[in-house]
Amino acid sequence: MDIIKNIEKVESLNTNLAGKDFLLTWEKSEAELETILTVAQILKDLRSKNISPKVFQSGLAISQFRDNSTRTRFSYASAANLLGLEVQDLDESKSQIAHGETVRETANMISFLADFIGIRDDMFLGEGNKYMREVGQALDDGYSQGVLPVRPGIINLQCDIDHPTQSMADLLHLKNEFGSLENLKGKKIVMSWAYSPSYGKPLSVPQGIIGLMSRFGMDIELAYPEGYELIPEVEQLAAKQAKASGGSFHISHSMKDALKDADIVYPKSWAPYHIMQKRTELLKADNHQGLNALEKSCLAENAHHTDWEYDDEKMKLTKNSDALYMHCLPADISGVSCEKGEVASDVFDKYRTKTYMEAGYKPYIIAAMMFTQKFKNPAKVLNEIMTKNNKRVLY
Amino acid sequence: MDIIKNIEKVESLNTNLAGKDFLLTWEKSEAELETILTVAQILKDLRSKNISPKVFQSGLAISQFRDNSTRTRFSYASAANLLGLEVQDLDESKSQIAHGETVRETANMISFLADFIGIRDDMFLGEGNKYMREVGQALDDGYSQGVLPVRPGIINLQCDIDHPTQSMADLLHLKNEFGSLENLKGKKIVMSWAYSPSYGKPLSVPQGIIGLMSRFGMDIELAYPEGYELIPEVEQLAAKQAKASGGSFHISHSMKDALKDADIVYPKSWAPYHIMQKRTELLKADNHQGLNALEKSCLAENAHHTDWEYDDEKMKLTKNSDALYMHCLPADISGVSCEKGEVASDVFDKYRTKTYMEAGYKPYIIAAMMFTQKFKNPAKVLNEIMTKNNKRVLY
Amino acid sequence: MDIIKNIEKVESLNTNLAGKDFLLTWEKSEAELETILTVAQILKDLRSKNISPKVFQSGLAISQFRDNSTRTRFSYASAANLLGLEVQDLDESKSQIAHGETVRETANMISFLADFIGIRDDMFLGEGNKYMREVGQALDDGYSQGVLPVRPGIINLQCDIDHPTQSMADLLHLKNEFGSLENLKGKKIVMSWAYSPSYGKPLSVPQGIIGLMSRFGMDIELAYPEGYELIPEVEQLAAKQAKASGGSFHISHSMKDALKDADIVYPKSWAPYHIMQKRTELLKADNHQGLNALEKSCLAENAHHTDWEYDDEKMKLTKNSDALYMHCLPADISGVSCEKGEVASDVFDKYRTKTYMEAGYKPYIIAAMMFTQKFKNPAKVLNEIMTKNNKRVLY
Repeated sequence: MDIIKNIEKVESLNTNLAGKDFLLTWEKSEAELETILTVAQILKDLRSKNISPKVFQSGLAISQFRDNSTRTRFSYASAANLLGLEVQDLDESKSQIAHGETVRETANMISFLADFIGIRDDMFLGEGNKYMREVGQALDDGYSQGVLPVRPGIINLQCDIDHPTQSMADLLHLKNEFGSLENLKGKKIVMSWAYSPSYGKPLSVPQGIIGLMSRFGMDIELAYPEGYELIPEVEQLAAKQAKASGGSFHISHSMKDALKDADIVYPKSWAPYHIMQKRTELLKADNHQGLNALEKSCLAENAHHTDWEYDDEKMKLTKNSDALYMHCLPADISGVSCEKGEVASDVFDKYRTKTYMEAGYKPYIIAAMMFTQKFKNPAKVLNEIMTKNNKRVLY
Repeated sequence: MDIIKNIEKVESLNTNLAGKDFLLTWEKSEAELETILTVAQILKDLRSKNISPKVFQSGLAISQFRDNSTRTRFSYASAANLLGLEVQDLDESKSQIAHGETVRETANMISFLADFIGIRDDMFLGEGNKYMREVGQALDDGYSQGVLPVRPGIINLQCDIDHPTQSMADLLHLKNEFGSLENLKGKKIVMSWAYSPSYGKPLSVPQGIIGLMSRFGMDIELAYPEGYELIPEVEQLAAKQAKASGGSFHISHSMKDALKDADIVYPKSWAPYHIMQKRTELLKADNHQGLNALEKSCLAENAHHTDWEYDDEKMKLTKNSDALYMHCLPADISGVSCEKGEVASDVFDKYRTKTYMEAGYKPYIIAAMMFTQKFKNPAKVLNEIMTKNNKRVLY
Repeated sequence: MDIIKNIEKVESLNTNLAGKDFLLTWEKSEAELETILTVAQILKDLRSKNISPKVFQSGLAISQFRDNSTRTRFSYASAANLLGLEVQDLDESKSQIAHGETVRETANMISFLADFIGIRDDMFLGEGNKYMREVGQALDDGYSQGVLPVRPGIINLQCDIDHPTQSMADLLHLKNEFGSLENLKGKKIVMSWAYSPSYGKPLSVPQGIIGLMSRFGMDIELAYPEGYELIPEVEQLAAKQAKASGGSFHISHSMKDALKDADIVYPKSWAPYHIMQKRTELLKADNHQGLNALEKSCLAENAHHTDWEYDDEKMKLTKNSDALYMHCLPADISGVSCEKGEVASDVFDKYRTKTYMEAGYKPYIIAAMMFTQKFKNPAKVLNEIMTKNNKRVLY
C-alpha cells in the first residue's frame, strides 16, 4: 500500500538522477533529494516484506575508505548486496598506489566491471571532495574513450565538506518522525557543537546537516563556542538556502540560548575550521611535532567548554522538554565512553533507540543513490520489482 | 535416495531451532543436534549432486574473528556463500570500535541487513562466550524495538568454553565413520593432552569434544598430565552427561593407560586451566613481563611431558592397533612442523586423509546451523529445494 | 553477430582445457590459447550487450597474493563475480599458515567449496611456479581421495617465470589492434628493457611476452643492456618457438637499433637475472645487509642506462614513427611518477588510452581461463547463455 503510493510519488517527482555522481546534497534539487528519500523508503519497505530489489546479476561496487569506518562500511556493503553487487575494497596499503600511480590510472584500472565507487576521504580540508571529482573526471574520460563499458557512479561516503549519506539518512529519519517533509517547515533544529575529550573530528557532519536541512524550510540554529566556526562558505550557503526555502538560519554562541524551544537537537563535537586548516597544512608537511602541539592546544581550548554537554537540564529548555535528539554515532557519552562528553548518559539512554533507527536508514539511502544513478525511470523499475515479487528469503 | 531419507529423518526429529543462537552444544537437545548433523549431510550431498541450496537472494553473514583463523574463516565463508549470503568481516583494527564504542551499539549498527553473525573469541577465559551473549542481548533489544528487521542468528566460531562448529563436524565424521550415531554407543574415545612446543592453545577443542561426545553413550577417557585440567565445570558436565546417555567418563593421567582398546583417539595439546586463568589476568593487566615469565615456566613444565606424543607404539595399544585418529588441525607433527610434537609423522600420515575429511564437514555444519536457525521447518524447505532442482553450476 | 561468429570459432577450435591449470602459456597449444582469447572476447561482448554469463549459483574463487597487486586483484575479482563466484582472499598474515602449516594441508582446507585458486607468487626465482604446482598436486590428491568434491583450477596470477593473464590480455589487445592473430605474422615487436629508478622488478612480464608472442609468427626483438638477461631457458624457448612459428627471435643490446621499423614496442624495466638469483639467495637467508648492498649496486648499474628511455626521438625510429606502445602498467613515466623513467610523458600520453584498453582485457582473460577450465564444451555453454539471454542489469 505505502509502497505503491511511494512509487507513485517517485513517478510524480519525475526526476532523472541517472549517470550523476552524488557528491554534495546542495548540487541536487529538492525534488531529486525527495526522490532519493522516497526510493530509500521503498527499498526498506520491500525488504521488510521479503521482496528482493535485486537489480544486478553481477557487478562490483568498489569502496575506498581513506579513513576508518564501521557504520558506513557496513551500510555500503549492505546496499550493494541488496541490489546484487559485490563490494571490492580498494585498500591502498595493499596496492601499488602508494608507489606514485596517478589517480586517473587507478580509477580506470579498477573500474572495468564496476558500477559504483564509494569514497570516504575526510582527513584533509580542501582535498576529499576534490579527489572525488578527479576520480569522476577520470571515469568520464575512460568511458568516453571506450575504456570503460559503463561509467561507474560515485557516491560520497564522507568528504571534507559534506557527509551526504549521513545527512540524507538523518533527513529520512526526520521525515518519518514528523510525518512528512512538509511538516518539517518551521521546525527548529539546533546543530550544536558539543564538548568532547577527543580532537580533530571532521566538519562534514555539521556542514552536511545545515547544508541539507536548510532546504526544507526549517529554522536552523547553529551553535558553537566562539572560534569553532565551520567552513565559512557552507555557513553562508546554509543561510541563503534557509531563506530561499522559507526557513531561517542563525548562529549562536550559547548552547542554552540556542536550545530554547528546539524541536530537534544534534549536539556533536567538531574541530574548528581554522584548526582543521592548520592541521591540514601540518599533515601535508608531515610535521609530527607541530601536530602534537596543535592537538595539545586544541584540547586545552576544548577544556574551557565542558559545559557544552547536552544534559537533562538543557533538554528541559527544548520544546516540551523533549526535542528529538539526533547523532551520527558513536556519541561521546559522559560516564560511558568518556568521563565528560557530548551528551549525558540518561539523555542518551532516552533517545538511544531513536538514534539506532536514524542510523538504520543509511544502507537504504546508499542503495537509493545507486538505484537512481542507474535507472532513468526508477518508478518503472520499482513497479517491475513489485510485479515480479521475487523473494529475498526464497522459502 | 539418501537425501530423501535424510529429509524424512529431519522431519521425524521434528525440532525447531529457528531464532536460537548456537553458543554451546550442551544447550541443545540430542534431537536438535541430530537435526543439524542431518541437515549438514543433506547440504553436502545436494552440493555434490550439483543441486544448489541457495535460499537467500541477498543478505549479509557477518564474521568477527578476535583471533586468527584460516579453516573456520573459509568454512564460514563457504557456508554463507552456499546459502546465498555475502560475508562481511568486522575487522576491529579497521573500525572505530577500538575508540570505546559499546558492544550494544556496534551489534546493531552492523546488523541492519544481516542474517547471521559468526564470532570467534577464544583468548580470554570467562570472556568469549559472555561476549557472544552480550551481542545476542543487544540484537534481541534491537529487534524488539524495531531497529532491526530481522534478528540475526549468532554462531559460535570458537569461544573460551566450546568450539561447536568443530565438535559437530567431528561428530558428523564419527557418525559416517561408524555408520550411525547409534553405533557410537559404547565406543571408547580418548581425548588426550599431547605434547607441543607451543603454549597457550585454547581449551575449547577438548572441552567441546567431551561436552558433545558425552551425549551419545560413548565411553570418554580424558587424559592429561596432572595439573593440565580443563575448566572444572565442563569436566563435571561431561561426566554427568556421559552417565545420563548410558556411557561413561573417566579422567586418567597416563596417555598409555588411557589408550588401551580405544576406538577413537584425539591427541591434542592445550594449556592447563589454571595457567589460562593466570594468563587471562595478565593479558587484562597488559602485563608483558608477567606473560613472558608465565610462558617460560609453562613451556618448561610442558617439556617434562614430551612422551605424551601419539606414536606408532601408542597406536598399537588401541583397538586393533587402529583407533580412528582425529585432530582439528593443524597438528604439531614431530619432525614436520616441529622437532617433537603431538603426533609422530608416520601415524599422522596414515590418517591424514581422514583428518581432511573430518575438516571437510565444517562448512556444512555451519550452513546447517544457519539453515535451521532460519527455517522453522527445515525439512519442508529442503523438499522444495529438491523439487526446484536449481543447479549450482548452471550449465 | 560477432558473438555468434566467435562461438563458432570456439567450436571449430575444438579444444578441451577442462580440468587443466593455467600455469605457463607455453604449456598450451596455439589452438588452446586462441580458444581462451576468443572466449574472453565473447564474455566481453556479452557483458557490453548486458547479457550475463553467470554460470555459477555459488562457489568460491580463492585468491592468494604473495605480492602486492591492484590491477590483477580487481581483474580476478571482476572475473569471478561475472561468472557468479565470490572471491575469498587467503591472507597469510591473518591466518595460521605462518605457524608452519604445510602447503598440502592449507590447499585442501580452503578448497572444500572452491572452484578456483588464483595465485600470485613472483618474489623468489625458482619458487613461485613451483609453489603453484605443489598446490596443484595437493588438490589432485585431495580430489582423488574424496576430500574435495571438485578439483579447483589454478590460475597463475604472476609467478617467477610467466605472467600469463598479462601476456594473454596483451595478445588479445594486439589481435584487436591488428585485426587478427593471422595479421600478427611478420610484425616486429620489441620487448625492451627500459630505465627505472626502482629496482627488483620481476622478470615475468618480459618473459611472458617473449614466451607468448613467439608462438604467432612475430619477429621478436629482445633488447637490454649487456648483463640484463632474462632466465636463459626462457630466452632459448622463445627463440625455438619463434622459429617454429615462422617468426624470428633476436637479442640486441641497443634500444635504438632494436626499435628500427618496429610495429610494436614494450619498453619496461626489470632486474637482471643474475641479480634476481642473488636477491633470492639473500631473501632466503634473510640477509638485510646483503640486500641493501645489492640494491645499491644494482641502482648504480641502472644509472648508467638512463638513456634507455622510450621517448619521442626513439619513437621516430619505429614504423611510421607510430609503433603501438604497450605496457602492463603502472609505467615509470619521466617527470610524472619519477624524474627519469621508462617512457617520456608525451609518448605515454599519446598511447595512454590504448594502454588502458590493453589492461581492460585482463578480467575477461581470467574469466575465460575459468570458463574453459570448467566446461569441456565451452561453445555449447556459450550458446546456451545466448539463448537464455539473462540480463546483467535486470531492468
